[in-house]
Amino acid sequence: MSEELKIVVIGGVACGPKAAARAKRCNPNAHVTLIERDEWISYGGCGLPYFLGATVKDINDLMTTSWEAVRTPEFMKATKDIDTLLGWEATKINRAEKTVEVKDVKTGEEKVLPYDKLVIATGASNFKPPMEGIDATGVFGMKTPKDAVDMQNYIKAEGVSDVVVIGAGLIGMECAEAFINWGLNVTVIEMQGSIFPQVLDPEMGAVFQNYLEGEDLNFMLNTKVEKLLVNEEGKVSAVQTDKGVVDAQLVLVAVGVRPVVNLAVEAGLEVDRAIIINEHCQTSDPDIYAGGDCVMTKHLISGQRVYSPMGSTANRQGRVIGTNITGGDLTHEGVLQTAVCKMFDWSLGATGLSERTAKQLGYDTVTCIVPGPDITHFMPGKKLIMTRLVADRKTGQILGVQIVGPGKVDKRIDTMAAALTFGVTARQLANIDLSYAPPLSSAMENLTNAANVMQNVIDGKAHDMRFEEFKSKLDSDDVVFVDLRTAHERAQKPIPAKNQLHIPIEELRARANEVPKDKEVVVFCILSTRGFEGQLILNNAGYDNVKFVQAGIQFWPLDK
Amino acid sequence: MSEELKIVVIGGVACGPKAAARAKRCNPNAHVTLIERDEWISYGGCGLPYFLGATVKDINDLMTTSWEAVRTPEFMKATKDIDTLLGWEATKINRAEKTVEVKDVKTGEEKVLPYDKLVIATGASNFKPPMEGIDATGVFGMKTPKDAVDMQNYIKAEGVSDVVVIGAGLIGMECAEAFINWGLNVTVIEMQGSIFPQVLDPEMGAVFQNYLEGEDLNFMLNTKVEKLLVNEEGKVSAVQTDKGVVDAQLVLVAVGVRPVVNLAVEAGLEVDRAIIINEHCQTSDPDIYAGGDCVMTKHLISGQRVYSPMGSTANRQGRVIGTNITGGDLTHEGVLQTAVCKMFDWSLGATGLSERTAKQLGYDTVTCIVPGPDITHFMPGKKLIMTRLVADRKTGQILGVQIVGPGKVDKRIDTMAAALTFGVTARQLANIDLSYAPPLSSAMENLTNAANVMQNVIDGKAHDMRFEEFKSKLDSDDVVFVDLRTAHERAQKPIPAKNQLHIPIEELRARANEVPKDKEVVVFCILSTRGFEGQLILNNAGYDNVKFVQAGIQFWPLDK
Repeated sequence: MSEELKIVVIGGVACGPKAAARAKRCNPNAHVTLIERDEWISYGGCGLPYFLGATVKDINDLMTTSWEAVRTPEFMKATKDIDTLLGWEATKINRAEKTVEVKDVKTGEEKVLPYDKLVIATGASNFKPPMEGIDATGVFGMKTPKDAVDMQNYIKAEGVSDVVVIGAGLIGMECAEAFINWGLNVTVIEMQGSIFPQVLDPEMGAVFQNYLEGEDLNFMLNTKVEKLLVNEEGKVSAVQTDKGVVDAQLVLVAVGVRPVVNLAVEAGLEVDRAIIINEHCQTSDPDIYAGGDCVMTKHLISGQRVYSPMGSTANRQGRVIGTNITGGDLTHEGVLQTAVCKMFDWSLGATGLSERTAKQLGYDTVTCIVPGPDITHFMPGKKLIMTRLVADRKTGQILGVQIVGPGKVDKRIDTMAAALTFGVTARQLANIDLSYAPPLSSAMENLTNAANVMQNVIDGKAHDMRFEEFKSKLDSDDVVFVDLRTAHERAQKPIPAKNQLHIPIEELRARANEVPKDKEVVVFCILSTRGFEGQLILNNAGYDNVKFVQAGIQFWPLDK
Repeated sequence: MSEELKIVVIGGVACGPKAAARAKRCNPNAHVTLIERDEWISYGGCGLPYFLGATVKDINDLMTTSWEAVRTPEFMKATKDIDTLLGWEATKINRAEKTVEVKDVKTGEEKVLPYDKLVIATGASNFKPPMEGIDATGVFGMKTPKDAVDMQNYIKAEGVSDVVVIGAGLIGMECAEAFINWGLNVTVIEMQGSIFPQVLDPEMGAVFQNYLEGEDLNFMLNTKVEKLLVNEEGKVSAVQTDKGVVDAQLVLVAVGVRPVVNLAVEAGLEVDRAIIINEHCQTSDPDIYAGGDCVMTKHLISGQRVYSPMGSTANRQGRVIGTNITGGDLTHEGVLQTAVCKMFDWSLGATGLSERTAKQLGYDTVTCIVPGPDITHFMPGKKLIMTRLVADRKTGQILGVQIVGPGKVDKRIDTMAAALTFGVTARQLANIDLSYAPPLSSAMENLTNAANVMQNVIDGKAHDMRFEEFKSKLDSDDVVFVDLRTAHERAQKPIPAKNQLHIPIEELRARANEVPKDKEVVVFCILSTRGFEGQLILNNAGYDNVKFVQAGIQFWPLDK
């Protein structure tokens, strides 16, 4: 190319700078301009809750490279030969002329930038639900470094003792942990019936919630916020809900983000909730690319368009864009909506479809939950995790995975993300050559076990009962519960079942005839290893109506 | 089936008990007999080094279920309705009559067991190289619980201070750590030129070795053991090698295992080093199945038969066998020779082909090494890992992965095992939706980064120089080394290069003309992020002969 390629990138975080830097690497002669209306570029936005909670001590740490260089416009110019317009806002895209109009946010100065290729990486903004008191002092969103700094300063200056977080999604929950770090009394209010509603199905959310309540987090679920109460100084003082009033000197509104698409809409690009792109990250205008939190992506399992704002996806798309706008040819096929979160000593993760979504999409779903130690059970330091697979009954394809617990969760989610990308079935998953060494894993890795259990369920060998059903039948006259645990285990966590028998697994074959023939039989143990064995033993002894409690009783919140 | 299905399983650890238990679960009416010539069944053999090192306190912990029931013959009968012949040895398979001859090891009593389906899970035995002194007191192998108990007792009773481990493979090295735990002076002697020679390519082995030497392990590589010196009491006192004599009151011989195939050979089954099986784990006799450490399996990348003894594979094959001998239809397609190991505060792992093996198989290999923190660089608690991919230049298929370092290695290996199972290419790997949350990972996960670097190398964008070449050129007059680090970083780890320039990456564009035009240019930084950027900047400034040091200089042992 003898003519210099002119590239304009709108948006200075994650996708934008990645696209800009990659474009320069692929075509050093390109002239690249990066436009950011806020005060910072290329910061680790997902780190903001960890600055808020003082895990990250200095807000500038989020803006630095691994060698502690701050990503200023000067740095971008010197190192990457990228021109950065910081504090400038793109106000209009003229597709016919191939120009972008920009304005200095402070001075109002205007410029018109010509482009050969344009990248829209305008990201998302916090959704601020219209309600009384929403603009009061002490009401925050969490989106920019300024939000985090302001919130921290407010806590320090105002003697905050009670915080309400509205929304139990990833950002709300990460910030809730941050507030606990400050010793505050924190209540999370969520409209839906379980926490992390976009990530975990309700039963997994309940397990995680049970843990968090032990860490002094308060929850109000199925609860609608009606308004924020404001004192005479104009500061928020409480949150009024349909279930009562909660004191709060600080309110974090974390009910989700909305893609910033106004420029794209005004330019006539195809937009459906967020900007529509193809697998080359190209919009409906072939010279305009888009990526990150302002685009729709394809879900690799369902094939449907989803809105899935994630820093990781933004970076991947940025690289694809930077390559393609300089003559390369990369694709970004889609996402699995992979998400992980660590809170206190537990973590959670999910990839693929939730059971709820899979059902909505019309799949005939099969679910199994397999708890177990995250390393060999005879090794010190083992911790439990609970792995839950959802599969398509017909094909055995794994549709989604959720894992929670104190043990190692996140990289197992990654393993499943890799497998799901290729449409793995339960049978295939069972034979993936996952690693084994006692300090790190088990001979039958948790994911292998889960795949095997899933096969047993699909094949009609394993008959499990979900916890909700188990709980609902505890008082039933028509059900007998057979406790397969040891006497010691049984003493530690008794079960309030009306009809129960205690027959340790080792004695069940010999004592099977003690089980009443005229009742539904529910066998259970701690982690359901013995449960399945017990079901088979009783089946073999002539009992047809036998189920084992899915996942055993270790993890479930029994007293709720 | 009205006739009872008679199943005989030879071998009571891993594959055997798994096959037996699965068979009973699939067909409760089957009569299953499990034969084990030693004193224990179904123990966690891979845990023996951790008992040896007193991480696991009680040898019985290796024989228990997760609810602390010991897997005795009585337990197997009561819980699983499996008959166990403990201390009985199978001496002959009569394929025509479909019987197995067995003998009580202690009493010599003999029996003949008829079978409909036979499972050979005879495992492997330690290879004991013929050499003077090999049978002396104080010379051990590590295969059975007895070995571990005897070794521990010998250490306690004999005042051992110096130990030699012969063989730097997985078992030898795990035991070496155990000996260090006892405060012993440990020397590992290895014939090959690097440690973990079956798992790591030499350069990765060198990095791990460098770490282990800091943990007081001594190594003698490229060293041949000639004989063991024995004192007048018949106890080993030293090891004589071609590089000198090493004192040792205890010698562990860990030079590998050999599949136990004598029964199969005598029965005329197809055997090539180990027993040949098909994907149903069936031998050349359709009524005889085999699995675990006595069989050959297919390597999923090369398609070739490999001998790959692993407890995890044995369990997977056991389940396939148990299913298939009771009328089911499962397959075990093969392995990736996945291996992981934790030693002190580091770990290592590999899956797929090593570079060496891939080259031997005729692949045109491309290698990249990408070090980086295992979680977001601004989070506390981050640790480094070094990820090394080997790909096929032509197709971009990832052939193998090796990772070492203090950070989280093992589950990244699992993620790659899942991806390699499906023939993942570098381009595909780059877009797998791996998880991101700052306490757990980076927005650009290490595996994503590695995939991107691999693409850059394959595409001819990135020109890296391997560490060996870098080291060999430090004194060259024809090479100039451009240090892209900060002054602070530079002061911490100076490089002994004859011709060197210090130009921090931020200044390189402006000062590119300071770099001599008549020399080969080698740029470097700590982790090679800046190295690649520097190469591109100099390319753009008209320098053609520029390379960056692969992986930077952080991990490499510079002073060797």
